[in-house]
Amino acid sequence: MLSKAISYVINPHYRISNFIINSFRQLTSISLPERRQDFEKLTSDDIRVFQDLLGNGNVRTKEIDDFNFDFMHWYKGNSPCVLFPENTQQISSILSHCYKRRLAVVPQSGNTGLVGGSIPMHDELILSLKKLTKNFELDSTSGILECDSGFILEEVDNRIAKDGYMVPVDLGAKGSCLLGGVVATNAGGIRLIRYGSMHSNVMGLEVVLANEQGQILRLGSNLRKDNTDLHLHKLFIGSEGQLGVITKVFMQVVPRPLSVQSALIGVNSFEKCQEVLKIGKQMLNEIISSFEFIDGEAMKMVKENADLDCPLNIFSNFFLLIETSGSNEEHDSSKMDKFLTKILEDGFAEDGVLAKNAAEADQLWKLRENCPLAIRKDGYVFKHDFSLPLKYFYELPEAVRKRLDVKAKRIISFGHIGDGNVHINVSIPKFDQKIYDLLYPFVYEWVYSKGGSISAEHGIGHVKRNFHHNLINPKIREISSSIKKLFDPRGILSPYKMIDF
Amino acid sequence: MLSKAISYVINPHYRISNFIINSFRQLTSISLPERRQDFEKLTSDDIRVFQDLLGNGNVRTKEIDDFNFDFMHWYKGNSPCVLFPENTQQISSILSHCYKRRLAVVPQSGNTGLVGGSIPMHDELILSLKKLTKNFELDSTSGILECDSGFILEEVDNRIAKDGYMVPVDLGAKGSCLLGGVVATNAGGIRLIRYGSMHSNVMGLEVVLANEQGQILRLGSNLRKDNTDLHLHKLFIGSEGQLGVITKVFMQVVPRPLSVQSALIGVNSFEKCQEVLKIGKQMLNEIISSFEFIDGEAMKMVKENADLDCPLNIFSNFFLLIETSGSNEEHDSSKMDKFLTKILEDGFAEDGVLAKNAAEADQLWKLRENCPLAIRKDGYVFKHDFSLPLKYFYELPEAVRKRLDVKAKRIISFGHIGDGNVHINVSIPKFDQKIYDLLYPFVYEWVYSKGGSISAEHGIGHVKRNFHHNLINPKIREISSSIKKLFDPRGILSPYKMIDF
Repeated sequence: MLSKAISYVINPHYRISNFIINSFRQLTSISLPERRQDFEKLTSDDIRVFQDLLGNGNVRTKEIDDFNFDFMHWYKGNSPCVLFPENTQQISSILSHCYKRRLAVVPQSGNTGLVGGSIPMHDELILSLKKLTKNFELDSTSGILECDSGFILEEVDNRIAKDGYMVPVDLGAKGSCLLGGVVATNAGGIRLIRYGSMHSNVMGLEVVLANEQGQILRLGSNLRKDNTDLHLHKLFIGSEGQLGVITKVFMQVVPRPLSVQSALIGVNSFEKCQEVLKIGKQMLNEIISSFEFIDGEAMKMVKENADLDCPLNIFSNFFLLIETSGSNEEHDSSKMDKFLTKILEDGFAEDGVLAKNAAEADQLWKLRENCPLAIRKDGYVFKHDFSLPLKYFYELPEAVRKRLDVKAKRIISFGHIGDGNVHINVSIPKFDQKIYDLLYPFVYEWVYSKGGSISAEHGIGHVKRNFHHNLINPKIREISSSIKKLFDPRGILSPYKMIDF
Repeated sequence: MLSKAISYVINPHYRISNFIINSFRQLTSISLPERRQDFEKLTSDDIRVFQDLLGNGNVRTKEIDDFNFDFMHWYKGNSPCVLFPENTQQISSILSHCYKRRLAVVPQSGNTGLVGGSIPMHDELILSLKKLTKNFELDSTSGILECDSGFILEEVDNRIAKDGYMVPVDLGAKGSCLLGGVVATNAGGIRLIRYGSMHSNVMGLEVVLANEQGQILRLGSNLRKDNTDLHLHKLFIGSEGQLGVITKVFMQVVPRPLSVQSALIGVNSFEKCQEVLKIGKQMLNEIISSFEFIDGEAMKMVKENADLDCPLNIFSNFFLLIETSGSNEEHDSSKMDKFLTKILEDGFAEDGVLAKNAAEADQLWKLRENCPLAIRKDGYVFKHDFSLPLKYFYELPEAVRKRLDVKAKRIISFGHIGDGNVHINVSIPKFDQKIYDLLYPFVYEWVYSKGGSISAEHGIGHVKRNFHHNLINPKIREISSSIKKLFDPRGILSPYKMIDF
């Protein structure tokens, strides 16, 4: 699970206008939107309707702060009520009622998102999927899983392990995020290079629409191949809960690897990092499961802030953490040995170490996992989640260094180089508006100008909404809004976020 | 390339109403739709506009039968004109003109589809993508390809081979189908079990809309991870040319395997076939690239009709053709040996043969490739492309046998068992309406009732349109139509096909 170290709060009653900073709370400038006037307020009659539907125990109006706060504690919503439906039909009835009454609703899964997508901005109802955990069926021959969306990702993984399967996505938040949320945010993680995104693995969804009937639709199928009609379930993958509520997931799961290896290597130039990636893809090929990147600044930081030692004898400018997953340990070791020998002998890498056992592998992965966590010790951190074409992958830290001059305490880069996804973190002792203004929208525009993405895996939510809307082609924004209206005609689902209504 | 043996024709001037058979031409009952009255007819003024845009040589009005016929020669459209744009801007101008003039247009790639999706039903203009072959760029480090949609699939594969890459999709039609058509139909093929569908590999598209401006949109990106906005390019994958014209494709390509092995095994029961699949997925795991199925009836047929001998000593009820692709021949051979030994010793398979070289592998694959081709020698063939949950995968041939009693000459099954995709072919000496009526809609309803798909990989086009529309949830049909209207406001793109307007 990701750290919960940051606990600063925007109080929703203290609404701040565009880019005025609540610097007392040392927050990134987050502007809260106006409450939409066409939304009704929850009444005691509504509560009774929900109690009749779900039972009193599944309608909570007290001690609901955990549901109003986002994971980063950047926001605190003001929802008066959390609903815990236990089946699809109840969700249908809830959404039908909310449609008729014009009550805004935020579907919430594990609430582990990093962009303020899963919490209310004002007094939206919270529809928690935590109790939607009845149906679970794995076809152990085809490797096709059909299950309710409320299962915790790690529990799904544990349940299918006995049949030799594994969920193809692995995230830091796997111990608390729910499968439906993983789909709704198209979560990425460290194994995407091997198994692809949720688009590669989800074959169909059951969703409930926020229309008059609270219509239940089965989109796509539980089949690997199905070319009948538009593949509408794809729209819900990464829709951030704004089109409908995902209630069931039909997805393929993958054979659990029998052999896993991890190696850390030091490389002196970014050009050589790219060469190593290329050679790795040829020589490790079908067994690569992660190809991670840590720059020298990040490695220094994890030593200083988390007292973690880099195990290599030579301290290089860049480090690559490479994991393989396969079905035969002898074969995999042989491939890894040949690969490491090749890149060392040919001078692409300066040094390298191969974990001899799981404990050693954990040590290597701790270095990588601590990049986003340990930097928080510096004070305030500006965090980013970019995709960039590889030729620009390491240009941005240089551009940021130049722009900020000596004003940042630290600028570190780490991420999933195999997927072109880089996390650039900038730390300063405490939040400073001048640094903020130097960084934004500069970094987003820089990334956009290079054909990159300002959100590789975290999504847009509310945090990146304004930047996103400024950069995106207006026609695409218009089409997305029109599509939202088809599924959610009154725009009551998770308002004020990625898609306009 | 698929065989072009069948050459029967429906003459579009001889319009037939619903399910009246042109039995003289021995055709499946295909009803042609009424021409939409709101479409204008092409005039000499339009021709001049196109000639000014494209040059006279790229506006063809004579010798265009090849473009009016579908691949199976089931249809012959009556288009007066084929346009050959050479760049995206020209396509934009064409579509803008067609929008303003209300001229219907069919985008056409390689015209190798099997459901009548790529040809005009009446006098729609044909917009051929064959000359859209200017831009081609492979990033050999990231394995990301950006190229115009008009390249032949095999040419794309050949071009990237020198950098050690391969296109992740392999089809019988690869020598003539175009990349854009592969995307527009979400074509499947024999390697889907390993590399996934086009949804797994296409990361973005440039498309041109048939609206007033002939708007050019870049949807998605050339990035593996991009969670900004709805993933709208997904709608175009499998849209059969009905939303817009795909002009550029951004996709990942995969490392070319250095070692390929093929084995054929004989299995006595369908239950054991499923066990072999399960064991194969564990033991061959990361190197499986195909897992194909041939039943005994199909194997007898290829002997009788194509004089191809099954190389096994024991003739079993079922045959599995298994291919592995990997990066190390020694490792792959060892895995395959252990797998074959296991399934033979444990009694799952009766007999098996491993190809010693490429020539022997070709012999094995000829058996599989001839299943859909050699059966045509029987006379008339009813062909099907179903996805089914594995437990129902082999129930349908039995149900069809029972329903047709002894009226069919042959009922054979083959397909991609690893993907749950079965092709059931029913042959009779010549087309017979009674058999047709026994088969349809019986087989489609049977498949649908088992949670299957009536089109696993071929799509809907016009051939399956009525069946599809009868089976699909009306709300989904309505949403698809509404989405079509957002992109193609006058419904001029490939009318009378999968999506209603």
